Amino acid sequence: MGLINHVFSEDNLKKLYVSNLGIGHTRYSTSGISELENCQPFVVETLHGKIAVAHNGELINAKQLRRKLMRHGVGLSTSSDSELITQLLAFTPPLENDDTPDWVARIKNLMNETPTSYSLLMMHKDIIYAVRDPYGNRPLCIGRLISVGSMSGKGKKNSETEGWVVSSESCSFLSIGAQYYREVLPGEIVKISRYDVQTLDVVPRPEGDPSAFCIFEYVYFARPDSIFEGQMVYSVRRRCGQQLAVEAPVEADLVSTVPESATPAALGYAQKCGLPYVEVLCKNRYVGRTFIQPNMRLRQLGVAKKFGVLSDNFKGKRIVLIDDSIVRGNTISPIIKLLRESGAKEVHIRVASPPIKFPCYMGINIPTKEELIANKPEFHDLAKYIGADSVVYLSVEGLVSSVQESIKTRQENQNSLKTNKTHVRKIGHCTACLTGEYPVELDW
Amino acid sequence: MGLINHVFSEDNLKKLYVSNLGIGHTRYSTSGISELENCQPFVVETLHGKIAVAHNGELINAKQLRRKLMRHGVGLSTSSDSELITQLLAFTPPLENDDTPDWVARIKNLMNETPTSYSLLMMHKDIIYAVRDPYGNRPLCIGRLISVGSMSGKGKKNSETEGWVVSSESCSFLSIGAQYYREVLPGEIVKISRYDVQTLDVVPRPEGDPSAFCIFEYVYFARPDSIFEGQMVYSVRRRCGQQLAVEAPVEADLVSTVPESATPAALGYAQKCGLPYVEVLCKNRYVGRTFIQPNMRLRQLGVAKKFGVLSDNFKGKRIVLIDDSIVRGNTISPIIKLLRESGAKEVHIRVASPPIKFPCYMGINIPTKEELIANKPEFHDLAKYIGADSVVYLSVEGLVSSVQESIKTRQENQNSLKTNKTHVRKIGHCTACLTGEYPVELDW
Amino acid sequence: MGLINHVFSEDNLKKLYVSNLGIGHTRYSTSGISELENCQPFVVETLHGKIAVAHNGELINAKQLRRKLMRHGVGLSTSSDSELITQLLAFTPPLENDDTPDWVARIKNLMNETPTSYSLLMMHKDIIYAVRDPYGNRPLCIGRLISVGSMSGKGKKNSETEGWVVSSESCSFLSIGAQYYREVLPGEIVKISRYDVQTLDVVPRPEGDPSAFCIFEYVYFARPDSIFEGQMVYSVRRRCGQQLAVEAPVEADLVSTVPESATPAALGYAQKCGLPYVEVLCKNRYVGRTFIQPNMRLRQLGVAKKFGVLSDNFKGKRIVLIDDSIVRGNTISPIIKLLRESGAKEVHIRVASPPIKFPCYMGINIPTKEELIANKPEFHDLAKYIGADSVVYLSVEGLVSSVQESIKTRQENQNSLKTNKTHVRKIGHCTACLTGEYPVELDW
Amino acid sequence: MGLINHVFSEDNLKKLYVSNLGIGHTRYSTSGISELENCQPFVVETLHGKIAVAHNGELINAKQLRRKLMRHGVGLSTSSDSELITQLLAFTPPLENDDTPDWVARIKNLMNETPTSYSLLMMHKDIIYAVRDPYGNRPLCIGRLISVGSMSGKGKKNSETEGWVVSSESCSFLSIGAQYYREVLPGEIVKISRYDVQTLDVVPRPEGDPSAFCIFEYVYFARPDSIFEGQMVYSVRRRCGQQLAVEAPVEADLVSTVPESATPAALGYAQKCGLPYVEVLCKNRYVGRTFIQPNMRLRQLGVAKKFGVLSDNFKGKRIVLIDDSIVRGNTISPIIKLLRESGAKEVHIRVASPPIKFPCYMGINIPTKEELIANKPEFHDLAKYIGADSVVYLSVEGLVSSVQESIKTRQENQNSLKTNKTHVRKIGHCTACLTGEYPVELDW
Repeated sequence: MGLINHVFSEDNLKKLYVSNLGIGHTRYSTSGISELENCQPFVVETLHGKIAVAHNGELINAKQLRRKLMRHGVGLSTSSDSELITQLLAFTPPLENDDTPDWVARIKNLMNETPTSYSLLMMHKDIIYAVRDPYGNRPLCIGRLISVGSMSGKGKKNSETEGWVVSSESCSFLSIGAQYYREVLPGEIVKISRYDVQTLDVVPRPEGDPSAFCIFEYVYFARPDSIFEGQMVYSVRRRCGQQLAVEAPVEADLVSTVPESATPAALGYAQKCGLPYVEVLCKNRYVGRTFIQPNMRLRQLGVAKKFGVLSDNFKGKRIVLIDDSIVRGNTISPIIKLLRESGAKEVHIRVASPPIKFPCYMGINIPTKEELIANKPEFHDLAKYIGADSVVYLSVEGLVSSVQESIKTRQENQNSLKTNKTHVRKIGHCTACLTGEYPVELDW
Repeated sequence: MGLINHVFSEDNLKKLYVSNLGIGHTRYSTSGISELENCQPFVVETLHGKIAVAHNGELINAKQLRRKLMRHGVGLSTSSDSELITQLLAFTPPLENDDTPDWVARIKNLMNETPTSYSLLMMHKDIIYAVRDPYGNRPLCIGRLISVGSMSGKGKKNSETEGWVVSSESCSFLSIGAQYYREVLPGEIVKISRYDVQTLDVVPRPEGDPSAFCIFEYVYFARPDSIFEGQMVYSVRRRCGQQLAVEAPVEADLVSTVPESATPAALGYAQKCGLPYVEVLCKNRYVGRTFIQPNMRLRQLGVAKKFGVLSDNFKGKRIVLIDDSIVRGNTISPIIKLLRESGAKEVHIRVASPPIKFPCYMGINIPTKEELIANKPEFHDLAKYIGADSVVYLSVEGLVSSVQESIKTRQENQNSLKTNKTHVRKIGHCTACLTGEYPVELDW
Repeated sequence: MGLINHVFSEDNLKKLYVSNLGIGHTRYSTSGISELENCQPFVVETLHGKIAVAHNGELINAKQLRRKLMRHGVGLSTSSDSELITQLLAFTPPLENDDTPDWVARIKNLMNETPTSYSLLMMHKDIIYAVRDPYGNRPLCIGRLISVGSMSGKGKKNSETEGWVVSSESCSFLSIGAQYYREVLPGEIVKISRYDVQTLDVVPRPEGDPSAFCIFEYVYFARPDSIFEGQMVYSVRRRCGQQLAVEAPVEADLVSTVPESATPAALGYAQKCGLPYVEVLCKNRYVGRTFIQPNMRLRQLGVAKKFGVLSDNFKGKRIVLIDDSIVRGNTISPIIKLLRESGAKEVHIRVASPPIKFPCYMGINIPTKEELIANKPEFHDLAKYIGADSVVYLSVEGLVSSVQESIKTRQENQNSLKTNKTHVRKIGHCTACLTGEYPVELDW
Repeated sequence: MGLINHVFSEDNLKKLYVSNLGIGHTRYSTSGISELENCQPFVVETLHGKIAVAHNGELINAKQLRRKLMRHGVGLSTSSDSELITQLLAFTPPLENDDTPDWVARIKNLMNETPTSYSLLMMHKDIIYAVRDPYGNRPLCIGRLISVGSMSGKGKKNSETEGWVVSSESCSFLSIGAQYYREVLPGEIVKISRYDVQTLDVVPRPEGDPSAFCIFEYVYFARPDSIFEGQMVYSVRRRCGQQLAVEAPVEADLVSTVPESATPAALGYAQKCGLPYVEVLCKNRYVGRTFIQPNMRLRQLGVAKKFGVLSDNFKGKRIVLIDDSIVRGNTISPIIKLLRESGAKEVHIRVASPPIKFPCYMGINIPTKEELIANKPEFHDLAKYIGADSVVYLSVEGLVSSVQESIKTRQENQNSLKTNKTHVRKIGHCTACLTGEYPVELDW
């Protein structure tokens, strides 16, 4: 429980050095309360020895699966989807001969029981299986640890592979000296041994269903230097800013950002519309936990603890302030007030993503429908509500095209070369929280 | 993990005040390593809601049961016997109608699967089931919480019952304001609701098998003010001392004790043989963890940190020193040396229990056969090995008679009144660690 | 802050292994609140390098000394007497030549400023000075670390001295492999180097003043195996019990103790009056912090958490229960009730020390006058108030004679040999808390 | 000890709510090791009650002052300059009448004893004195807490003062709902009561000496939204970037920053030279403590844990990378390597401050001379050493003019109005670490 840096102290890590493979998962509780019991990996002993499972995602039919397992007589000790997956892998009948468990069959059996969403790792003895659900809703990619000697050299071709790593986000590879290798494909079952990465199977989606990678990874969750579907997240965000400049231009003196997540979009917006990019807020690096709330003054000024104001940069000027998203509408309002009080002449808000309106059942912790600003009456006059001179969101089409533009270009180039298997490659994105259109039936 | 006083801080306890029933167990790891995962109670969700299980003991056929459960497809997440019990209770087929679980049938099913050793509590909704294995190997007793008003009064008959408590040892009742009510009988299934204690069934032992309550609870584990089988542990220990005086008298000036556990035996011995009882050692209350071991001097004097020497009490005298048990022989030897160096003329050791020679498979953590002093060559001249002028253990027969004397007297009185069911009441005690005779076949 | 075992973890101790001398003091806050700043030793840098001071006691004229120092311009950073001592040692004018500080002169200067109470250690470079105030109010004694080889041998004469240790209580020596060497005398200044212990001076008391070692060290504070003034504390306590049997006999069936501190007195009483010594209470070793106090039941039964009742030992019998002291009267009352409820026919209380009536200004934390049972109206019918059949305290004369009996015998033997210096050796004891007669004027 | 957020837990803060004034200081150990004893504020009891002192800075003549105090007989318990200040305030002779301490006289006395560097707060009863040394080496400014009602209104003139706050950096005011009021002037002694801020005196510098505010506060230490000498730190940094573009232009495709501290300079540089500003690195927010260093791979890639690489933004391009300072040269080298390996065609380094060559004795923790890259032989071909295509530092004159430009403009405007006191206002800055010219003699 707690931040990785606190949990994995030097002493704790030393105990792990005896080994050369392992799995884990830093949770952000979604379904399953944040409790010690829900910590991953889930480890159980089976007839064939121990298996460990780390799981990112949320099973869309978890309720039905719980009941099914309990009816079989399995007592469930946590509220976690990941325990379900683990017990399903332990349980799957018919059981094989004691000596030769068929893990691929069991994994496919699991995938038949539940369509989405899961990216998971299963470890058994010295093998790790990496699996992504057929819709590819959650990310998963593979990195290659290369020898130190070859790292420093420029000729990457001769570098020697020292091992493999799997991660939700490719940005983590650099910091451990690994290189991005490739994504695990939707539905793919990959077997990883020390020196080898091998595709065992690709479980298809029902005919006609497009893939459904979560579009909010691009908008909000992922680190800007991560790569999904062949493109850098930062580039997608900048394209969103450019698209926003096209969709919602405004007469102003400068373009700025709510640091740091909206900066790529702000730079894209500024470049597209030809206005100067200027910083108006700086981040307070030492915010930490906000204990000190004895009176109304401080509650009212909560946002002022997060940001410093660079007032000399914008006094008397008209600001276009780019934010990456407005979910509840609580944060942007005091920022606008802060800027006005510090001398801004006008504050126009441009949001580099569409309004969130619907719940996510696939692993993302979204506020309740009632809390979402887009579902409130005030949304009809949002500018007034948040105190802005104007406010415009990016359109869903604008977001989707910003995301898919370069994928489609690349795909067309590839398709002109090899024309089969296109039904598997039908690219789509899950925009359920924006449109209410879920990739599978909710009562699957 | 840790001592109760550390774990159950005031804050933690406050969270429990919303409730009015609960179970728990302070483990002392036996089978099942001391790990967070093995902490009790085990809680699982079943088709009929959550059940919680607290278990004292060790299943003699745990290995076979683990395999059986895993073959059914249950992944086991701990190395604990108690998880086995919990999953067996969740699992037991045939499953009843969803709405009316038959917990007694399930508990009896469990008792058919494993003969010993377990004293356990199972909680489901507002009912607690207290169960003791048919051999009664581990203790379990019931106490009655009485109203404050009636506590202070002398007329106990009018006191009002406010609730029920169950414990391994009756000594715990006094400290929470409860009164000893009765033991759970070997094989008994008791159902406890807020105001009612009800025997649901008594599962019999195989014909001819005597009960097998662990004799070492009397000798070593239990607190002296606890009551088992109708007698106070202190009284048994004093009888052991008296019996030891009969079996192994010695010419000396004074009788003393290794404080504090051997004191009742020492007082019994002194009284029986007519020698004065004198203290020769005092306990160092602040021993704590013994970090300070930088050099040979301190390692050699380890025991001197545990005890102070009351040398003026025994200078120039012949001591009979009573100990409750000598297991490894590491402790008594430096004590003898300490006494001699402080002026004792002779030191005769008398041990108020027989030598331990065999492993326990029923929940008691006994050193390996090799570590037991009784299995070492030095045992043949133990006095010389530990530096004593003489050393004698109590005989097995002496111990058993000290334990059973008052039980048998009582039973004879009762049997003269009501004569049936005697096969269930056949009283015996588990002396496996002393004699190698286990109450059931080890490969049950 | 905290228990030694928690503070001096293995890691903390390792840092000290580079060194071969050191001082410290475990405080029990008396004057000076229990705060981090008051932790000892006090270390200050002076013109002649660092000095460190550890101090046991309480300066009777602390207030005047504080003012004197502050008037000189020293800002005091704690409320502790020990800082006063340290600054007085740093400050004492006239300052000597920079290169040769005269620490003995400074220590004597300090002793002129304040008569009592202090036993203190001052460390400067590789020398430790051990000092006891002229009245000898607080204890201080010296132990000798002997080589491991000589420890195990019987011929102690040939043992090699490896170093010296100083302690309030001699009981601590055994646990680190040291031998009791001698007491520091009242007024003595001892210089300790690695291999040598040297008396530098003995500062006399005003003519006619007897020494004034705290009599409550014998009664209550010290561990029974400690030696003061040539006698074992345990022996004094047993003599108190014997004296009590003479002063206050009672017709009863058995003598018992409030464990563990009253046991020597109880054994002395039992032996003197010929009644059997029997245990009626056993200590609950796991009491710890008493968090669990949700309702009246538990508050009322506080004492029941501390003790178990050995009811079979005294049912239907008349008990003489010996306690070492009754200060507030809160504890004995529920014990008596517990014994009666468990079957005692009569409970007679005999207290092996006189009633405490006056405050201590010399380092002992005594309850306020109002809290002391001896100053309450109820004291006139104490037996009724605490629920006993009778209650008698030991007389002041009885206590003093029990303490001084063997000292005087020894002294007479010595005096018959060497007759001078008797005014220094005039033995007395501080009984201020019992009699209100303080060893020095309170406004000294 | 530790981060503010850890030390001041909610529970700890609650204890402070009873009070309405207080002082403190977050140290960053400079002189005085980072030990508990050196924690501020220093509190001592004086003849006139307690005083508490919080001190930012380092006394240039600490050694001489320590000796002086110890010669007077004061034992010093820490290695901290701040204890010196506290004892000097407690001690200063001649002592006044007991009842009316003259704190201003004492503070001026202290200022006569030591010229720099200190910004300090002294609290006595309900008054806080804020003092800045005559050279103004360390910053200190005053903020005004205004009532909640007036905060939200636009008309600031009518706002009601609720209290006063003092801080090293004005950026802290916003986050507690306070407004910047003014700087404490060099040499000024300000008395602060609940509603009033009053200048008691301004102690002058020796004739001809200019003020000497630390120029590295602008370059490196301060938060960009802080205000010193009437100007925002961010603006100074941007001017440094503009000046750098003038001094050291380069033919390239884009200008970027080492986030986040160099961003204002990078934006200034980009704007001045007309190149696009593009992000090439993103900060890894979760770096934390870097425990995981088992092998050479990770040590070599240390910097890769701090930054992510936005490779798509600069592949095949020539980068001008702005850094705020290069002190040891350890960090920039792997960043350059990282950029090249990720596709940068050229990497030119421009540093927005001059090279550091000399130690600071006034409170800033600068590496030893040997560690400073500017003092190493490699500095003569620094570009080669760090792997850059070129590297140029800002000139000292360029830095000083960037800092003083707007101050001088403002001062000229003011001087044209009121012409006296100009000797006090002679503005200078401490550039000792860059030039070796210290504001006062080092053996003062």
